[in-house]
Amino acid sequence: MAMAVAMAMVLTSSSVLVFLLWIQSVASSPDHIVTYGQQDLNLVSGKRFLWPFPASVNQGHGVASLSQEFKFVQLASDGRASDNLKSAFYRYYGIIFSQHSLHGGSSLLLDQTLVLKQLQVHVHSQNEELQLGIDESYELSVPDSEDPTAASLKARTIYGALRGLETFSQLCAFNFTTRTIQVQNTPWEILDRPRFEYRGLLIDTSRHYQPLEVIRSVIDSMAYAKLNVLHWHIVDTESFPIEVPSFPDLWNGAYSNPERYTLEDAKDIVEYARLRGINVMAELDVPGHARSWGNGYPNLWPSSNCTQPLDVSNKFTFEVIDGIISDFAEVFRFKLMHLGGDEVDTTCWNVTPHIRAWLIEQNLSPFGAYEQFVLRAQKIALSHGYRPVNWEEPFDKFGSKLNNETVVHNWLGPGVAPEVVKAGYQCIVSNQDAWYLDHLDVPWETFYQNEPLAGITDTEQQKLVLGGEVCMWGESVDASDIQQTIWPRAAAAAEKLWSPLEVTKAGVSTALPRLEIFRCLLTERGIAAAPVRELGRKAPPGYGSCYEQ
Amino acid sequence: MAMAVAMAMVLTSSSVLVFLLWIQSVASSPDHIVTYGQQDLNLVSGKRFLWPFPASVNQGHGVASLSQEFKFVQLASDGRASDNLKSAFYRYYGIIFSQHSLHGGSSLLLDQTLVLKQLQVHVHSQNEELQLGIDESYELSVPDSEDPTAASLKARTIYGALRGLETFSQLCAFNFTTRTIQVQNTPWEILDRPRFEYRGLLIDTSRHYQPLEVIRSVIDSMAYAKLNVLHWHIVDTESFPIEVPSFPDLWNGAYSNPERYTLEDAKDIVEYARLRGINVMAELDVPGHARSWGNGYPNLWPSSNCTQPLDVSNKFTFEVIDGIISDFAEVFRFKLMHLGGDEVDTTCWNVTPHIRAWLIEQNLSPFGAYEQFVLRAQKIALSHGYRPVNWEEPFDKFGSKLNNETVVHNWLGPGVAPEVVKAGYQCIVSNQDAWYLDHLDVPWETFYQNEPLAGITDTEQQKLVLGGEVCMWGESVDASDIQQTIWPRAAAAAEKLWSPLEVTKAGVSTALPRLEIFRCLLTERGIAAAPVRELGRKAPPGYGSCYEQ
Repeated sequence: MAMAVAMAMVLTSSSVLVFLLWIQSVASSPDHIVTYGQQDLNLVSGKRFLWPFPASVNQGHGVASLSQEFKFVQLASDGRASDNLKSAFYRYYGIIFSQHSLHGGSSLLLDQTLVLKQLQVHVHSQNEELQLGIDESYELSVPDSEDPTAASLKARTIYGALRGLETFSQLCAFNFTTRTIQVQNTPWEILDRPRFEYRGLLIDTSRHYQPLEVIRSVIDSMAYAKLNVLHWHIVDTESFPIEVPSFPDLWNGAYSNPERYTLEDAKDIVEYARLRGINVMAELDVPGHARSWGNGYPNLWPSSNCTQPLDVSNKFTFEVIDGIISDFAEVFRFKLMHLGGDEVDTTCWNVTPHIRAWLIEQNLSPFGAYEQFVLRAQKIALSHGYRPVNWEEPFDKFGSKLNNETVVHNWLGPGVAPEVVKAGYQCIVSNQDAWYLDHLDVPWETFYQNEPLAGITDTEQQKLVLGGEVCMWGESVDASDIQQTIWPRAAAAAEKLWSPLEVTKAGVSTALPRLEIFRCLLTERGIAAAPVRELGRKAPPGYGSCYEQ
Repeated sequence: MAMAVAMAMVLTSSSVLVFLLWIQSVASSPDHIVTYGQQDLNLVSGKRFLWPFPASVNQGHGVASLSQEFKFVQLASDGRASDNLKSAFYRYYGIIFSQHSLHGGSSLLLDQTLVLKQLQVHVHSQNEELQLGIDESYELSVPDSEDPTAASLKARTIYGALRGLETFSQLCAFNFTTRTIQVQNTPWEILDRPRFEYRGLLIDTSRHYQPLEVIRSVIDSMAYAKLNVLHWHIVDTESFPIEVPSFPDLWNGAYSNPERYTLEDAKDIVEYARLRGINVMAELDVPGHARSWGNGYPNLWPSSNCTQPLDVSNKFTFEVIDGIISDFAEVFRFKLMHLGGDEVDTTCWNVTPHIRAWLIEQNLSPFGAYEQFVLRAQKIALSHGYRPVNWEEPFDKFGSKLNNETVVHNWLGPGVAPEVVKAGYQCIVSNQDAWYLDHLDVPWETFYQNEPLAGITDTEQQKLVLGGEVCMWGESVDASDIQQTIWPRAAAAAEKLWSPLEVTKAGVSTALPRLEIFRCLLTERGIAAAPVRELGRKAPPGYGSCYEQ
């Protein structure tokens, strides 16, 4: 049966079809992964419960132990080794081998199991540029069908290889009897690829400053869940923490001197994320959500007592936006730039004499001025090589007047994506009723059941949905509680965005034991993921096992 | 004035006297550290607000920048370098230099300030054994009075040097203008030593398993606050997560297979802590708080339906205790072993026929059997070279019958320590009304104002108070919320235990700005310390600066 399924996987290119075949294989394979429960958890480490679940999985009944001299080996067809992959090898070596002491690992017991001496990683493409839509697929065999002493990981890009390394690390578990790292249920044949190309997490460094060390830790945790876009909502009404060399007084809007990021810091964050296969999308939310800009340049305010939206009548406003985006272009290489455009209250424009006069002179309503502002900001971003992303209000209000390149970011509620793709725009789904992490009363099940393609039947229109994003707004989130507010609920969305629909359709009861184990895996890696069965960032209700709370 | 104070410091051995002199120096030194406020915070990084505050501090009006080639240098009189110190150098190099990118640091501006090329560390003693009462004093000069291009750190032991390195790291701050690491208000002359030799934090890995990575992170954070004893409450009623080779079924009482520690893991934790100058005190809480022991050996239970205290009538019970302690003796080298002895309800002994019969045969009341059990456990610990520590109940109940070596650990309330030291026993203070971290409604001010020597006037009796400990009981604390439940409140107790009484007597309003900054420093180092002005582990109430919440 195992062989039959493995064959089928090779022969088909449709992950859905493959998955159906795999479903059949479950029936006749009683010890399949999803059939394990707490009892088995007590026999071996639970880490082999994969999250997010791969597109297709086949496994056997064997056991392999990793040799104490285990090595990651890069097979570079043209002899050129990748430093990026090398750094990933170091990271995953640490993750796999530094959990428990391997001192006194039993070579006696090793003899009784298959011993893996290396993981051979073969990346086909030398192109290491990270962009939207890059191939993240991989094929993992433990052990390799030809060489029983090696595991094999094949990918088209190093970013696919990174996803495969994460999956391999989740297969590895410390065995408390042999004191070795083991892979249960060999041979594993895993073919995997993401369902959506955009799998995002928003962080907000304006309501609370997040130290660089915390942002790095969030990026680490994203890689564990195979998320691939960090949406950095850098500035907002409350504070402006980042350096803008073109307008050096802008970060006077920071909360305090230490609560700032230099542009070099941002560059370091972007590189740190890239090494983990994660794009960083910067956001400049205009014309609303920008009061802090005026701390450095009060002219950006309509007036000192009516301070946002940004002064639409002032040429300087757009010079500043152009300056920021041109400085950002040196750092944020992801082709999407988020321009916000949400929650714009134009009252200040109406009541401020010089703007009121300008509106009349331009024969513009405040609404028309709002539209003009959004379109001008889009043009500026486009002139710097970015594709503009806007929250949904500009689409809801101005529709097809938005640039064709616009990606519309849904947030207000469900049912928006169908309208967006019907109009021919690409879409990112973040409906707040299901994917806003600051909504503490939304349980993981709701995150898990939110379907980005709901209400979209046309396959061409479905392709316009780039994916989705969970949003961690920062009003009540600082360095002390960001991780447990994000995790484990963000992981539920991560599987929805990565795994074939058939996996998540299987439902929350099937997912729960795997999610419990993924949450405990996060804590073993130093990520403060909260109990799964509680609401957002709730403390455990009482004593008990990590795997049952 | 500065010289006069510095001289006085050298001439006196009483930190109190030194501190008084330093107080005088404040008067004529208006820019002394404690006079800085939010305004200055906005001029330079707040990191130079030291926590816990040193025994004596003198500073000037200069500025020094750390060279980009800055080095830690060990001056070993006999040429023998310390690997332990070397590893600390690597840690603190990372802490000081890896916060913000130093790319493009301005050499131009460097020229205008004093440039420090190295920190010269001189340790007098080659003895690197860590034990209770080891000398943790140090003398830090930035720059060295003879060499303006170097800072100087002198200590009697490497553990004093570790404390000095932490203080040095708190003096260093990233300057956003020069993009260099700077020390403000040079020259610094700091003479420091702890007020109490025992400054502890209890963690509880029975109510919730704490992953090794989390325990390591807690140890890191303890070093930042100069705490020096990790009281590891390993096992309790709920679970038995640690390996005991002599009785290999004991850890069947773990919550699950992965939620366990091998003895090698414990050895690694002890070494990790030692490298940070932190002792690990293991606890075996008997005869109560031990139900989980019986999962592996049901004979330890009075009966299957009355499962604790441990069966006092069974020789096997004491064989197991001896086995555990003899195995622990291979790992836990700290000379104190905590034997619990608290909250013992002897009902099960009374109602279980074979124990009831034994009591009659021994002519023992349940109370007498409790006393006999505690004394037997003490003898076993002493036979393995440990000094026994007990929670206060055995002292309250059996008083002077306890072994003279006993250290009594107060927890029930205030007013106990005076009784303990009057009886001639050493004492550790943890009165739950002030120093129990699981009491979420106890604010940092209460932690700060709790005085271990309250009610003890006799100086000889005062010497019997080893110090104090904050207790992080684990019923509602797992890997997701342990750090923000511990910090910043534990830091308030840490200063009470380290700094001269005159510092903490100055009160909470003087301490608040420094504590805010220490909390933010913890978050910059990746420690999830909660807002200072809220109760235990509360989320920030809304947007705002780390330094004002």
